[in-house]
This record gives sequence, structure tokens and C-alpha cells, in this order.
Amino acid sequence: MFTLQALIFERMKMYNFNSGPAVLPAEVLQQASEAVINFNDLGLSILEIGHRTDWFVKVVEEGRSLIKELMQLDDSYEVLYLHGGATTQFMQVPMNLLDTNETAAYCDNGIWGSKAIKEAQLFGNVHVACSSKDRNHTYIPRELSVPQHSKYLHYTTNNTVEGTQWQFIPEANVPLVADMSSDIFSREFPFSKFSLIYAGAQKNAGAAGVTILIVKKDMLGKIQRKIPPIMDYTKHIEANSLLNTPPVFAVYVSMLTLRWVKKEGGLAEMERRTNERADLFYNTLDSLNAFIGKTDKRDRSLMNATFTTQNPELETLFLDECKQNGMVGVKGHRSVGGLRVSMYNALPLSSVKVLCDLMKDFDRRHG
Amino acid sequence: MFTLQALIFERMKMYNFNSGPAVLPAEVLQQASEAVINFNDLGLSILEIGHRTDWFVKVVEEGRSLIKELMQLDDSYEVLYLHGGATTQFMQVPMNLLDTNETAAYCDNGIWGSKAIKEAQLFGNVHVACSSKDRNHTYIPRELSVPQHSKYLHYTTNNTVEGTQWQFIPEANVPLVADMSSDIFSREFPFSKFSLIYAGAQKNAGAAGVTILIVKKDMLGKIQRKIPPIMDYTKHIEANSLLNTPPVFAVYVSMLTLRWVKKEGGLAEMERRTNERADLFYNTLDSLNAFIGKTDKRDRSLMNATFTTQNPELETLFLDECKQNGMVGVKGHRSVGGLRVSMYNALPLSSVKVLCDLMKDFDRRHG
Repeated sequence: MFTLQALIFERMKMYNFNSGPAVLPAEVLQQASEAVINFNDLGLSILEIGHRTDWFVKVVEEGRSLIKELMQLDDSYEVLYLHGGATTQFMQVPMNLLDTNETAAYCDNGIWGSKAIKEAQLFGNVHVACSSKDRNHTYIPRELSVPQHSKYLHYTTNNTVEGTQWQFIPEANVPLVADMSSDIFSREFPFSKFSLIYAGAQKNAGAAGVTILIVKKDMLGKIQRKIPPIMDYTKHIEANSLLNTPPVFAVYVSMLTLRWVKKEGGLAEMERRTNERADLFYNTLDSLNAFIGKTDKRDRSLMNATFTTQNPELETLFLDECKQNGMVGVKGHRSVGGLRVSMYNALPLSSVKVLCDLMKDFDRRHG
Repeated sequence: MFTLQALIFERMKMYNFNSGPAVLPAEVLQQASEAVINFNDLGLSILEIGHRTDWFVKVVEEGRSLIKELMQLDDSYEVLYLHGGATTQFMQVPMNLLDTNETAAYCDNGIWGSKAIKEAQLFGNVHVACSSKDRNHTYIPRELSVPQHSKYLHYTTNNTVEGTQWQFIPEANVPLVADMSSDIFSREFPFSKFSLIYAGAQKNAGAAGVTILIVKKDMLGKIQRKIPPIMDYTKHIEANSLLNTPPVFAVYVSMLTLRWVKKEGGLAEMERRTNERADLFYNTLDSLNAFIGKTDKRDRSLMNATFTTQNPELETLFLDECKQNGMVGVKGHRSVGGLRVSMYNALPLSSVKVLCDLMKDFDRRHG
């Protein structure tokens, strides 16, 4: 196998700003690669072992307990590994929590929140608590209307596509439900204020193929609908997250990633790095003429920065230069265009420096 | 990285009879392991690249076209990679095909078929076409009752847990729907007689985390129910199997596995090996006093052989001896007990030989 040093050196040539699936820590990749050949020195691949073996049950248990520990959650919460990506949760959350005649409040602040609303409408009444549609979701609204009888308030803490992030927790006297796919584990956060949290793993918590779901147990068992067993959170809890064959490798990579987060100093250290990367990037952006941010400054995402070139014709040129310099993932989401850089936990500050240097140079030539 | 030769040698010490996740070809593991470090010589891991990049779209396209080619299906079929395991299809199939007032016929021949029936009952009327419950699902019934107006007939081609397999295709004048999770790609088969086929990948088609679904297009769009978009086959087809972030690594491993199947000689060669392994195993079993098969001979599964020791007290002893000799996965499913060996595509004949030798020796000592 590659030594870790050789691997880190090899990877220094690439700067990965992908929005997800995204950059992972070199040592996680090394461990994952080895486990595909020989897991725990068993002479078997992690891909070839039963999901109910002690070997894999230990992986699941360590992963779930790391999640609880990092999020500082007590035993009123259950942690599940689920299939299907966060998009499946757009359906599964209302299927489990919202009865046909009940109302849930949803914030409409981006492409993912809008999709969540659409799926929820098939299960109950959706009240839109706030919307930023009027300005293409480039800001986070301050005013929310949440009907008192709402079963819950759902929002997306970080909008990967639009580049905005809630820098505060919305006030609401109803349980909070959040899609944290793109900023979970990136900062210290009062997770215990939430009744349900879900996140696709492929940004800060591993590779694509598994979704982490945290739910307060008192939220469950309160509706009349017959839930298909495979979609029923209660059934997954009873089965210790092994209701059916889980996405074994994705669960393993997620556990390795969170082990790395803890070892590096936990969420306090992740927050320090998050701020360091974001400060460097946004300070550079604001100091240059050639580029312009797309969102309101106070609502900027610390994970996904969206911007454009002052002169639209220069966008392609800048993307070409990024490519030539080994920077990938700088193109904006196909639905909104422009430029975007994602700066997740595993992105080294040095990658942001290299990008900022290119931006400064580009500005000198074209600003 | 390990060389392929070294890897094969290392693995010769282990004999993997797991029922799934199960043994994979050594060269697939080697390629997968390398891709976790450096995919396509990009300097990036397969876990770190966007699922809409040309790099990954090519993987999806090659995988889907290999499936169609191996199964000899024409363009009236669509191939999808889905999340959630075959268990999710127990729900998703009736959700997409069966309206509330319609009837579907289901064969009740094992634990998975029974689960499929339970999920289908939430969506429409289920008529049980045949059942082998009277003898603990140790045989495949010959008599089926399929109401003429049935939307489809659903059955499980191979019962992983009970060790039975349909060695014929049931007669029915309605569309056939089959769960082929544990025998897909193990033999030449008239796949085009089916209107919908699904299979979790973790037996003959890769690692856990992705489900392959093949559907005849004329089956879709014929019901009134509002299907949640993320569960809607039509939406997945429109999105070329990229409706949301797919389980990237699991799709890749599945593609590599099918590339290997093709390279080795396709389904004709897989069938030859399947028969060779099963003949060796069952001939040995039938020649010994110490062991006894659990199913009717004519309905035996060529993938999963279930058996017990003649003297029940010797079962644990035999399992211990298997363990000491590097054989894993010989224990029966927790719901039925006994012994089981799974003999999927990637299991070398030499592994079956080693097992049979141990059985013969055990028989001499305890038979």
C-alpha cells in the first residue's frame, strides 16, 4: 500500500473544492483503501463480511457513539444509519412525523428546502414559514411565521447550492427539524435544540451512500399513518440500524471520518479551521475587483462560497486556469451557474491559499 | 499497493461462504482499493469526485450497459441503480405498479417473499399465489393460482435463507416481477420474460449499498397514486439514474464486478462454474452420513446450500472446525439455524473442495 506520507504528498498536487462527494482526509482514504483488501487483518475485505458479524456491529456502534459524543447528545436521542441520501429524508421525515391532517412549517431557502416542501406536501399540510425566493435564495430571511399548531419547523442549515447558511437558530415554539447535510460537524452547535437532524454523509461525514439521522425518541409513534416497515424510524431503532443490509462500506468510511474529527480536536477544532478557511477566502474575495460574492455578507456559508466574475465573460477563463492548476470543483451548481468553492472539514488551508493566490493574480491581470 | 498475485495468495488462506455481503473477485478488490486512493489516475479518490462528472457518468453508463448486455435485454428495458437494498423494493415495486384497488399475486416461499407481501399489502390487494409455509419453505410449490386480473406475479427466484431456488419459470399470463438478489448473473436465464427484476448487489453483483433494478418501460405510468418523487422509477429514468447523489463507490464496485463477469466468459461461464461448485458440494453432502440437506432435492439452490448435522449436537463442533480452518459464513441464517454455505460467482471451486474435504473427514470421525 501507499504509505500515508507518500499519499499526502501525491495529493498535494490536487485541490479539491467539490461540493459533495467531497475531499476526505488522506488517512481516512488510506485506511479505507486497506480495508477493501484486508479489514482488521481478517484476510477478508470490508466488502465481503456479513453486516451482522461482531466485526461490523462494532463499526456501527463506534460510529453511532462518535456521532452522539461529537454532538453532545444524551440518551433521549437515537442515531441511525439510513439508505437513500438526504433526498429520501425529504419524504421519510413527514412520512414518520406528519399525519395527513396536520401541518408542518418549512423554510423555503434553497433548492433542497424547496424539494423537501414538495415531498412533505404529499403527506400533510405544509406552511411556508419564510421564503427567500424573491432574491434567488441569496439571503436568509429574519422573519418567520410558524403556526402554533405546527408539528415541526423544517429548515436547511446550510444551502450548498446557493451558498447561504443560517448563522442563528430560528425562534419557534415547535420542534426543530434540520437538514444539516452540508455543515454538520463543521462547528460547535447546540444540536440538542433539535428534535430531528439528518445529513447525507458525503460532505463532512464520509462518502456517498449513507445518511445519518438523529431523532429524539419522543417525536416518534405519534401518527396514525401505516408506515412501510422499511421506512419506519421505530423499526430501524429496534433493529439497531441493521433492519436490512446497510451500506457497509459507506458506514465504515463515515466512522473513520468521525474518528479523525475527534482525533484532530473535535468540533471546536473543526470550527477553528472552518473560520480560518472562510475568513481567508472571503477576505480575499472582498479585496478584489475581478470577483463578486453572490449572497448577502451576513448570511454567507462558511462551507460553500458562491461568487462570479465581475465581467461574466471571464468566468470560463478563470475556470480554465483553476483546472490547469489542479483545482477541481470550482464551477457553480448547474441550476444556478457561476462559481463555487466548497471548504469542508478535510480541505487543507493550503488549498484555499493556492486558490486565493490564483484569484489575486487573476485580479491583477483582469481586475 | 498489493500486487494481484500477492493478493490472491494472501486470500487463499480464507474460504468465504458468506451469504452476502459475500466473496468478491480478487482483482475487483484490488481495483476498488486503488480507486479509493487514486481513481483513473486523477490524483483523487473515487470517494471524492462529483457524481455528475464525466468520470463518474462513464462508470454509470458502463455499468448499465454491461447489465443489459449480460442479460440480453433490448431497449424496451431501463436499468437503474437505486438506494436502499432489495428490502426497499418490497415497498417501491407496489408503490410504482399497484393501485389501491388493484390486485397483485405473490409467491410466499421464504422470508424475503413474505416480507415483500407485507409491504405490498399497504399499497393494494395481495393474492398469495402459492405458499411453502407448511414445510418451512423447504421446497418450491408446483401449483400456482394467479387471478387473471393480477397486475403482476412477484416471486423470489432464489431463497438465500432457506436454500431453495426456482429451477423453472412459473406459468402466468400476467407480467412477471422477480427479486433476483441472490442468483442474478449466476446463470444464463431468459430475463426478457420478466417485466421487472431487482437485486441487491452484495451477492453476485458487487458490494452492499446499491440495488440494481431493471424495468420494462410499458409497466410504468399506469397508476393513479401520487408517488413521492424520490421513489418514482420514472423520475429516476428521466435523470439517468442520477436523481440524487448515488452510492458512488457501490455503483463503481458493481460495474467492476460485472466487467469481471464479462471478461471471464459471461453468464455461460458463470453457469458452468455455478453447476461445478453445486455438483461438488451436493454430491459430497449426499454421500455422507454425518450431514443432511434441508430442502427438497429438486428445489435445491445452486447458490445457497442449507444443511444440518445428522446428530444436532455435532453442529457446533463442525462450525468450530470450519472456523479453525479459515472457513467463514457456514452458519445458517439466525431465523432458521442449521448450516449454510453460499457459493456465489466469485467463490473459487478450490474453496468448495476444501470444505468438502473437511466434511468427509468429519464424516469419518463422526458419521
